[in-house]
Amino acid sequence: MVPEEVVEGLPLEKIKDFSLEELLGMAIKAEIGAREFYESLAERIEVETLKDKIEWLAKEEGKHEALLRRVYASMFPGKEIVFPKEHIGPELKPVAKELHGAQDLIDLIRWAMKAEEIAAAFYEEIESMVETEDRKRLMRYLSDMERGHYYTLKAEYELLLDWEMYSQMMHMGP
Amino acid sequence: MVPEEVVEGLPLEKIKDFSLEELLGMAIKAEIGAREFYESLAERIEVETLKDKIEWLAKEEGKHEALLRRVYASMFPGKEIVFPKEHIGPELKPVAKELHGAQDLIDLIRWAMKAEEIAAAFYEEIESMVETEDRKRLMRYLSDMERGHYYTLKAEYELLLDWEMYSQMMHMGP
Repeated sequence: MVPEEVVEGLPLEKIKDFSLEELLGMAIKAEIGAREFYESLAERIEVETLKDKIEWLAKEEGKHEALLRRVYASMFPGKEIVFPKEHIGPELKPVAKELHGAQDLIDLIRWAMKAEEIAAAFYEEIESMVETEDRKRLMRYLSDMERGHYYTLKAEYELLLDWEMYSQMMHMGP
Repeated sequence: MVPEEVVEGLPLEKIKDFSLEELLGMAIKAEIGAREFYESLAERIEVETLKDKIEWLAKEEGKHEALLRRVYASMFPGKEIVFPKEHIGPELKPVAKELHGAQDLIDLIRWAMKAEEIAAAFYEEIESMVETEDRKRLMRYLSDMERGHYYTLKAEYELLLDWEMYSQMMHMGP
């Protein structure tokens, strides 16, 4: 089941139906959505270590948005950013509800993992579409970062599945 | 060439020559070494975004050390930790020298990537050696986290190779 904070979006193959300009706009919109999702999720998490990690992810996505805006400005100088209404991969929205127990959290983290995984593949595709080496590098950077996020979330997800152990291991001081 | 901050260590296959107790000791020593490496590296980095990221890695490794000490205490109650002198994969040591230009930094980041990659595989191997599901979960957690670090470093590495672009993209405000 797809929770209300997630819009499933288009499959990755659909990337071919959009121009580079549209894809960059889509990427910027996705980074904003992811940041808002993580910010609102962090507010609802009580376990300090997990809250910190989710806040860290929110900040990272904020930096990616800024970076993408600079890339856009350098590629399409003076042009307003076009934000297509379509989205590739799961689109994350702010978490408006209270979380009830570990299962709600686990579901959201699983969707966020999926979104990060597709984002990594999405930037890899854009890498093949941009022409200069510096732009390719920036897309590889974003792709690797999102893949890093995926594994960070996967790690937490793994422990969340055993909530009792998680709280035991994470609540105790060093 | 191996820089002085790195000891090359044993190949991953050698893991079979050690007991679980020794491997956990080795892992704790590796986390301490990695933390000290990242802390000392961060002190020598001027680019704020990269410094922050390396400091974040240092803190993460500190948390892993604490977690592993708890795992060790639960598996071998009351026993002093055995720290084998051997090490699997590149062993990171504190960075004592000043960094001259981007190339020194690039070399160190490349070795850190290698160390993180092998650490991820190392924890996967330990996962197959521990018996209970909760300990397996913890090893998967550590493995995924180190893989996340690998991609975080790979992202930075990619941009560092084009230093001019890096400083242009990272120095500018959002």
